[in-house]
Amino acid sequence: MKQLTEKCLEIIQPRPKNSHKGTFGRVVLIGGNAQYGGAIMMSAEACVRSGAGLVTVITHSKNHAPLHARLPEVMVVDWQDEDLIADVFATADVCLIGPGLGLEKRSKELLAFVLQKQDKQWFVIDGSAITLISEDNLSLPKPKQTVFTPHQMEWQRLSHIPISEQNQQLNQYVQQKLQATIVLKSHRTEIYHHTGIYQNLLGNPGMATGGTGDTLAGMITGFLAQFPKDITSIHAAVYLHSYIGDQLAKERYVVLPTEISAALPFWMNYFANA
Amino acid sequence: MKQLTEKCLEIIQPRPKNSHKGTFGRVVLIGGNAQYGGAIMMSAEACVRSGAGLVTVITHSKNHAPLHARLPEVMVVDWQDEDLIADVFATADVCLIGPGLGLEKRSKELLAFVLQKQDKQWFVIDGSAITLISEDNLSLPKPKQTVFTPHQMEWQRLSHIPISEQNQQLNQYVQQKLQATIVLKSHRTEIYHHTGIYQNLLGNPGMATGGTGDTLAGMITGFLAQFPKDITSIHAAVYLHSYIGDQLAKERYVVLPTEISAALPFWMNYFANA
Amino acid sequence: MKQLTEKCLEIIQPRPKNSHKGTFGRVVLIGGNAQYGGAIMMSAEACVRSGAGLVTVITHSKNHAPLHARLPEVMVVDWQDEDLIADVFATADVCLIGPGLGLEKRSKELLAFVLQKQDKQWFVIDGSAITLISEDNLSLPKPKQTVFTPHQMEWQRLSHIPISEQNQQLNQYVQQKLQATIVLKSHRTEIYHHTGIYQNLLGNPGMATGGTGDTLAGMITGFLAQFPKDITSIHAAVYLHSYIGDQLAKERYVVLPTEISAALPFWMNYFANA
Amino acid sequence: MKQLTEKCLEIIQPRPKNSHKGTFGRVVLIGGNAQYGGAIMMSAEACVRSGAGLVTVITHSKNHAPLHARLPEVMVVDWQDEDLIADVFATADVCLIGPGLGLEKRSKELLAFVLQKQDKQWFVIDGSAITLISEDNLSLPKPKQTVFTPHQMEWQRLSHIPISEQNQQLNQYVQQKLQATIVLKSHRTEIYHHTGIYQNLLGNPGMATGGTGDTLAGMITGFLAQFPKDITSIHAAVYLHSYIGDQLAKERYVVLPTEISAALPFWMNYFANA
Repeated sequence: MKQLTEKCLEIIQPRPKNSHKGTFGRVVLIGGNAQYGGAIMMSAEACVRSGAGLVTVITHSKNHAPLHARLPEVMVVDWQDEDLIADVFATADVCLIGPGLGLEKRSKELLAFVLQKQDKQWFVIDGSAITLISEDNLSLPKPKQTVFTPHQMEWQRLSHIPISEQNQQLNQYVQQKLQATIVLKSHRTEIYHHTGIYQNLLGNPGMATGGTGDTLAGMITGFLAQFPKDITSIHAAVYLHSYIGDQLAKERYVVLPTEISAALPFWMNYFANA
Repeated sequence: MKQLTEKCLEIIQPRPKNSHKGTFGRVVLIGGNAQYGGAIMMSAEACVRSGAGLVTVITHSKNHAPLHARLPEVMVVDWQDEDLIADVFATADVCLIGPGLGLEKRSKELLAFVLQKQDKQWFVIDGSAITLISEDNLSLPKPKQTVFTPHQMEWQRLSHIPISEQNQQLNQYVQQKLQATIVLKSHRTEIYHHTGIYQNLLGNPGMATGGTGDTLAGMITGFLAQFPKDITSIHAAVYLHSYIGDQLAKERYVVLPTEISAALPFWMNYFANA
Repeated sequence: MKQLTEKCLEIIQPRPKNSHKGTFGRVVLIGGNAQYGGAIMMSAEACVRSGAGLVTVITHSKNHAPLHARLPEVMVVDWQDEDLIADVFATADVCLIGPGLGLEKRSKELLAFVLQKQDKQWFVIDGSAITLISEDNLSLPKPKQTVFTPHQMEWQRLSHIPISEQNQQLNQYVQQKLQATIVLKSHRTEIYHHTGIYQNLLGNPGMATGGTGDTLAGMITGFLAQFPKDITSIHAAVYLHSYIGDQLAKERYVVLPTEISAALPFWMNYFANA
Repeated sequence: MKQLTEKCLEIIQPRPKNSHKGTFGRVVLIGGNAQYGGAIMMSAEACVRSGAGLVTVITHSKNHAPLHARLPEVMVVDWQDEDLIADVFATADVCLIGPGLGLEKRSKELLAFVLQKQDKQWFVIDGSAITLISEDNLSLPKPKQTVFTPHQMEWQRLSHIPISEQNQQLNQYVQQKLQATIVLKSHRTEIYHHTGIYQNLLGNPGMATGGTGDTLAGMITGFLAQFPKDITSIHAAVYLHSYIGDQLAKERYVVLPTEISAALPFWMNYFANA
């Protein structure tokens, strides 16, 4: 097992001078039902502030106004609008599905749709989407372009390893079968990948609050959109998310996830010029 | 009568390293009709920023968008959605009911529902819910797990002691009959409990503005969710709420309740490391 | 003609220790149709931050969500809800009507309602409400409890003095007939009152932007709610509004009205302790 | 070709003392369909903070609440309300059309309406409106009062010059035929005008994110509203937009467009007093 170090942030480099918003990727974020809309809003904030070029959020209509009130930088598509969803998805480079998606009929349809249509897109699969894949035993069209971000209970559902029996050997075994990358979130997040197991030693209990995982998922998505589409971007997002959380926790008992997103551009600038 | 001192904040300790959001409690907040939605929004902000792990707000549909625009960290359930309310309530550790709840038919139904279903949950009962309990003479299923947060007029309704005749002896007498904890809000808030009467000497007239009580109720709820479920958490919330208000009033003629919430994580960090 | 000086801010005194939110007044703000909703939002922000105890906004339903997203501290009533409007108005101490009210049928009905019901309430009449009173030649039930806040065109409508002919003598003459207080807004605002004419020498062209007048109207209302219900509160609100605008303009080319409101509690604290 | 320098900001002068909001122009912004509402919100923020006196946004009803939650300083008109649109447009000095407008039936109708009604108004034509004019080969009623703000693909559509063949000579040739001013956005924005070609050397790749162009369009509109209605205002807006972006990029990896707008009043004050 390897430990992530600050070195993994070296992929955050000064941007090429001759660039435009398309240079930094097209992203689709799918999630947020009528109850859990905040989750996809927090993913979107993380994704935009991490530097993704163009971000569209596909979500329940209830979430349209509050999302835009917080973040005019994204585009919004009603999750019932099938034609528009197909158009937007077709041009995406990276797709995050799951934050606040829920387990209802429409959640399943959207998940089925993107799994069927995945082509060049990298996928980040989080939250309810992990549960749905586990329950319905859905197969991944392109597992090597797929990142799961489960917490321990979601990993139990996906891997069929009870939490109490989860260990690196078993987790690695299941990862090898799935072939997807696994970001197993806990107070010491571990990343399972065909190149090895990576452990993140940063992070703190002030981050143990609703939305921290949604923010991480948004950051991984934003990093895959603009940095290399491989394990190095995942390493950097996981490490930086905790790094910023640790900085903020020096002054805060609880670190709100949206505060991590707000701090992102400043810390990315710091490391790009380090 | 005992006076609260800074010592009561000792329960705010550094968080255990191996923790996750479930460690810090599941909370349900019920309130906010079509007119008074801001009240439950302010409670929710205080609750989230005090460190509760997972917070769901059950409220009138009008409040969904503005609540989420301010606070994506919470989950939201329409107060007409009976099935979902039952599900969310069943897994809650602490329930606050009352801020902006109103006195209408639906307000009464929701109050009746939670009083009927209370099991392990601690209850914080505020605002309109106090009035409804007084008017309909409702009985508490688990008074020792119940905290009332009346101002003097609400206490008159609940205790049947006219404001002009409210004194410590009578208040204590009624508290002993009710068995619930009473946080009697005024410019010098008093707490009535079977272990004694506690007085809070902090606070200032800049806090005399709409929403200050909703914020306090949210803090008590958040503290009960993550700290001991007993009088010590109530002491700490009452004291810290006024302490922060006093700090902010050094520079402000009026202290907006949402400013107290914004400052919470910083002062909790200060006292956790004191 | 007398010039307002810093001395007029002496009414801003430290608050009485034994106070509660009712001590600082109950306010009703009426305005904001489907097009001009921002106006009443800006009045509400100024009123809350000036220290009014309890503030209810009566407005078009479109304005409910954005108002609450900005300002949970207020209560909101749909401007179609006649019963609730009557209830809220009956207990109010001060009523502002006009910011963004519009000239439509419902605007007129609301104005007619409050003019008919005015009892103890002081009135601040702004924007469209001035135009409606002028057009329909409505009479004031209690002119000595009434403050008009016209800009020069609105004053032309109300006084029938063309802008080009407006001068202190004529303005004073009309004020004496009307008996209401006139806050005539311009780059040098003048106040006409039975005790004399007062001129405000502060203010700057960075404040010449939409919403500055709505903010002033909200401040006058908030000051009348908590300070003496007489000309001294009007003087203080007019002077402080420009004073803060001048402070902010040291660093800003344009002073957004909401920035004046945000700074209010700090400057009121400064002068209360001067 | 001439290079823009700080000298072009000399038009930003201290405001005349005897001024009111009408002095600084009446602006209409048209854009924001159900998917792209954030674009017109970002234009509106830039326009208000650049100092335009009175700003009305004509947009899809979905955008009303989030726009007002962010910016109560504007007025809002539903893009279906034909009578009100005609009234508002008739009194406007400058009209921006295009940010997030979309390509649907209503988008086309609104564009056709303003092209037919243009009188004294200066036009800024951005985003989808450029595409619609290109596709339908619409002619400009008053090209010398018209500014296009295309990125390279939109310029390809409008000029029929493929991106790979766009050069100063060809661009200038087409500008001379169109007679409108062309602000050709890229990492080195160029301005084509009958007086010459101007190049902006400022700007940085941290600005390559969704919404940067909408913010620029809002600034150009705001500058035309209050400063001379000629090329000098366009120069100043283009230069200052990049200048502020460069300042913010010293600390940020990504510069959110709304951060440029937030900084505008401070930098305009700086240059007005330089």
